[in-house]
Amino acid sequence: MALYSELSCEQLRATYEEVKQQYDEFKARGLELNMARGKPSPAQLDMSMDIFDSVNALNGYKAEDGTDCRNYGNLTGLEECKTIFAQALGVQNSNIIVCGNSSLNIMFDYISQCMTHGAYEGATPWLLQGKIKFACPVPGYDRHFSICEHFGIEMVNVPMLETGPDMDVLEELVKDSSVKGMFCVPKYSNPQGYTFSDETVRRIAALKPAADDFRIIWDNAYFVHDIFENGDTLLNIFPEAEKNGKEDMIIEVASTSKISFPGAGIAVVSASENNVRMIKQRMNNQIIGHDKINQLRHARVLKDVNGLREYMKRHAAILRPKFDIVLRSLDRDLEGCGIATWTNPKGGYFVSLDVMEGCAKRVVELCRRAGVVLTNAGATYPYGLDPKDTNIRIAPSFPSLDELRDAMKLLCIAVKLAALEKLMDEE
Amino acid sequence: MALYSELSCEQLRATYEEVKQQYDEFKARGLELNMARGKPSPAQLDMSMDIFDSVNALNGYKAEDGTDCRNYGNLTGLEECKTIFAQALGVQNSNIIVCGNSSLNIMFDYISQCMTHGAYEGATPWLLQGKIKFACPVPGYDRHFSICEHFGIEMVNVPMLETGPDMDVLEELVKDSSVKGMFCVPKYSNPQGYTFSDETVRRIAALKPAADDFRIIWDNAYFVHDIFENGDTLLNIFPEAEKNGKEDMIIEVASTSKISFPGAGIAVVSASENNVRMIKQRMNNQIIGHDKINQLRHARVLKDVNGLREYMKRHAAILRPKFDIVLRSLDRDLEGCGIATWTNPKGGYFVSLDVMEGCAKRVVELCRRAGVVLTNAGATYPYGLDPKDTNIRIAPSFPSLDELRDAMKLLCIAVKLAALEKLMDEE
Repeated sequence: MALYSELSCEQLRATYEEVKQQYDEFKARGLELNMARGKPSPAQLDMSMDIFDSVNALNGYKAEDGTDCRNYGNLTGLEECKTIFAQALGVQNSNIIVCGNSSLNIMFDYISQCMTHGAYEGATPWLLQGKIKFACPVPGYDRHFSICEHFGIEMVNVPMLETGPDMDVLEELVKDSSVKGMFCVPKYSNPQGYTFSDETVRRIAALKPAADDFRIIWDNAYFVHDIFENGDTLLNIFPEAEKNGKEDMIIEVASTSKISFPGAGIAVVSASENNVRMIKQRMNNQIIGHDKINQLRHARVLKDVNGLREYMKRHAAILRPKFDIVLRSLDRDLEGCGIATWTNPKGGYFVSLDVMEGCAKRVVELCRRAGVVLTNAGATYPYGLDPKDTNIRIAPSFPSLDELRDAMKLLCIAVKLAALEKLMDEE
Repeated sequence: MALYSELSCEQLRATYEEVKQQYDEFKARGLELNMARGKPSPAQLDMSMDIFDSVNALNGYKAEDGTDCRNYGNLTGLEECKTIFAQALGVQNSNIIVCGNSSLNIMFDYISQCMTHGAYEGATPWLLQGKIKFACPVPGYDRHFSICEHFGIEMVNVPMLETGPDMDVLEELVKDSSVKGMFCVPKYSNPQGYTFSDETVRRIAALKPAADDFRIIWDNAYFVHDIFENGDTLLNIFPEAEKNGKEDMIIEVASTSKISFPGAGIAVVSASENNVRMIKQRMNNQIIGHDKINQLRHARVLKDVNGLREYMKRHAAILRPKFDIVLRSLDRDLEGCGIATWTNPKGGYFVSLDVMEGCAKRVVELCRRAGVVLTNAGATYPYGLDPKDTNIRIAPSFPSLDELRDAMKLLCIAVKLAALEKLMDEE
């Protein structure tokens, strides 16, 4: 295909007419499809139906240590669940607390705890320190930004590279003692699907923030979520941090939201001895215990870390054709036009698409008008403000293959149409 | 039986020898029994085994509105759950948010929200207001006190009467603008089993606290937990509060922890339109949604508010003989000694026992040494400090009938022994 930037005025107009007609044809079809969030598809959820019957009168309700999971007790979670996560994340069981159904809730509560009680025992609560800031790798996950915004934490953008956050920028930024932390998705990042390089992990583990209460929320949402063969490997940050005496700086979370059922899974936090102690102190006042029955269901179905990995291969088999469709569509329809770039992840839930500057909002709007709802343009940036209005997050997991083919065709048409509108406007 | 206070020195010593021998005989039996918490018994948990099979491949996983409960979505809970609780609590569905497995967690999060964001939109966060205080009806529920202590909220005792908190004291106390709220269990209070009288509810609803951000956590833990016929009726506080424009002052919580499974049940908050909006704003940043599958399980098994009431009759049938044993033991062994008083609740989970001043710790210690663990003496007071060291919470639900008979015999012996020790010491 020809570079759009090299088209003559007439060629532009002719291409516009052609693409506009394609768009109108799609619009006339009256599609109705929501691709806004990274939701597993019904086929993925069907994989986990065994979970429902794993704990009942027939199969029993007792944990391996004999605990009646139907009654009160057990603050930090079942040992069999801890083992699965500890082995998958490369930590000890004592570093793991198994919580409720949401790693987002764990992260929110952790930030809330820092606001009211400080990041370590005896630290000044963040709320009493005046204006504080978080470094935000961008584009990133909107719900991380929402937590910062909720607590009035000012967000400072740090560009994401293919290797992770731009460490030169981050190392400079943390010299400001009002910068208290960072959320990140170190493996198959949301939305790019980038995995932090070993060097990035080592540089993060070696950060020397001016704030002694600096905390990194290591949201390992896609820790076992490979889609293609030879998936990425994330260096375990805890041993690296320990080398620098910085293990208290890292709060890792993970969940089964995209393993079993979103909203009916289990989530864990993995942290240093000091952090586990402080989180337990809070939890001891917050809850008698999380849902052990649901923990037991998961332990029984996943069995062990190998069982978990086998489980994820079945998810990959469902997701792979969808990612193939997305990537093949982008290649086929947009390659060579010079109006878009995109990522090529080996796992996770998203593909990140950068369109021509100033066009992302328009592309999302064009898709919406033709019946396909994408993640809001801007959502991948703090305050919903994509400074160049270029980034769109593609979430291929939920639609069927046919729906996805249509949606991607429409998306590519919309990317072209928005670019052509802009180029014609500039003439 | 004779009043211990009227025994001669010799009679005291003889009685002591007799009771001491009874105690030693118990000790020799090597009992092992934990009555520290209000845990349902296995027989009660067995009642709810249907919950496990109510959502599965056979019975389906869709809510009444068609929602696939296995996937993301739905912040405030399933409508069918809201309906059950709204009808039981006498509010509208729109006043209810169905949350996770713990009303304690709801209360903790609400206080945390007040600390960081204030009690209403635009209010000053409690954490930024310097020293703040809560009124604490005593004796009361230790986990309420723990939340206050965690957040550095100073606790001020308010005596509990049979009609609820001493309203003269409370009305005076809330003239202090640093007094920001109160936790209470208005029906079958923990530990006495008192239900607030209509007049108390009306006076609470008419409170005019100096603090415009005063909040009452109305922990309606035992809202449908009658044990005996003609159970208590709690006046619905919301209509009363509305008459005074004070509906924003009340945050009500309830749960199925003592209906289905403690730790694997569902919990709700019931609040005014303004409070629901503010809680939703926070939740929108905190969690994508609570466990809808577990909500659906409960809706299917409980069916409706009448189903809930029938369900509770079966719990009552299990609990009634236990409360009978406790009350008969106290009557038989302690009536007329003048060394103890106790409550006679029609529902809830506890009986409150007041022993001779300065003896509660000793009684609990004597029981512990003979193998029966009771709730710590002092636990029913803020900071674990029972000023007169008199109150003991009896939790009869978990032990079997035989165990309970033994435990109560031992407890009564310990009450006598501690009293005799004290009286002899005073000679």
